[in-house]
Amino acid sequence: MATKGFTLWFTGLSGAGKSTLAEIISARLVDHGIGHEVLDGDVVRTNLSKGLGFSKEDRDTNIRRIGFVAELLTRHEIPVITAAISPYKDVREEVRRKIGRERFVEVFVTASLDELVRRDVKGLYEKALHGEIKNFTGVSDPYEAPDNPQVTIDSELEEVEASADRIWNYLLENEFISINQPVLQA
Amino acid sequence: MATKGFTLWFTGLSGAGKSTLAEIISARLVDHGIGHEVLDGDVVRTNLSKGLGFSKEDRDTNIRRIGFVAELLTRHEIPVITAAISPYKDVREEVRRKIGRERFVEVFVTASLDELVRRDVKGLYEKALHGEIKNFTGVSDPYEAPDNPQVTIDSELEEVEASADRIWNYLLENEFISINQPVLQA
Repeated sequence: MATKGFTLWFTGLSGAGKSTLAEIISARLVDHGIGHEVLDGDVVRTNLSKGLGFSKEDRDTNIRRIGFVAELLTRHEIPVITAAISPYKDVREEVRRKIGRERFVEVFVTASLDELVRRDVKGLYEKALHGEIKNFTGVSDPYEAPDNPQVTIDSELEEVEASADRIWNYLLENEFISINQPVLQA
Repeated sequence: MATKGFTLWFTGLSGAGKSTLAEIISARLVDHGIGHEVLDGDVVRTNLSKGLGFSKEDRDTNIRRIGFVAELLTRHEIPVITAAISPYKDVREEVRRKIGRERFVEVFVTASLDELVRRDVKGLYEKALHGEIKNFTGVSDPYEAPDNPQVTIDSELEEVEASADRIWNYLLENEFISINQPVLQA
């Protein structure tokens, strides 16, 4: 049941599956009695970044603030899961340095734009593709994929539980978490 | 050496002695091997509240952000010390409710304006009194003293180590911290 502080940092386009995976990993940590914190993108926007927009500068500020809080918790041995789009490589790198490379687990979650449009129940991609939403990452705003993420998930090709297993095993194998019996979902 | 999460929230005018007391309590926690976090007003302004000014709305936002981070850490059993002026009663009350009354220790640090002017090495009070700094708490901006702080420190009447002892003893007596041998400074 022991654990050490780490930040599990999901990055990827809206709808790629970051939050779903974050929730599954969070639920498994709960099952094993491992206290942790999920810093959801929306919660942070509300509590730390109200008033910020979606320019590169404002997005960077938002990510730095998530990074600031993640660093605090990680340093005090509280595992953190973040699931913000975090489109820019330089700021993700800055956060990784602050938290410490050995405690930062970057998970890149990806799917094709066609698939994201198909999944998009709120119709945000359609609106963005028709120019009705500005600065929409992946359509009218850039997304810079990580070069060397610790885990890459293609949510179009892999079932979500299988993806969660790979992340979970990464955490186990690298001793971010240790549990009596590894629980591998069927 | 055991401890539980709590927030030691200093409030009071600039120069009253909040940071000095925060540092002394922090050093004592270090001496006893008790992990904790000091959320310094300036560090928070830099990392979470850049761009905010000193209107009531912006001050409130700054305090809410400190409160958000303090709540996260406190909930994960990490003691937090904050030392922002936090001039408004309603927002301090809001933060107290979020963190939980039973985990929130408000310390009101006060001294007379004459004394604050006398201590003020940066000459900020003089400038504020001459209208050169706007929105300066205690001169040109309001400060609302707490009605029922857990500890009140008059830094004009009491030596700083004696004040620190009273805060430390409050934490011990209310079982926020427990140590093998209470260390009382001479």
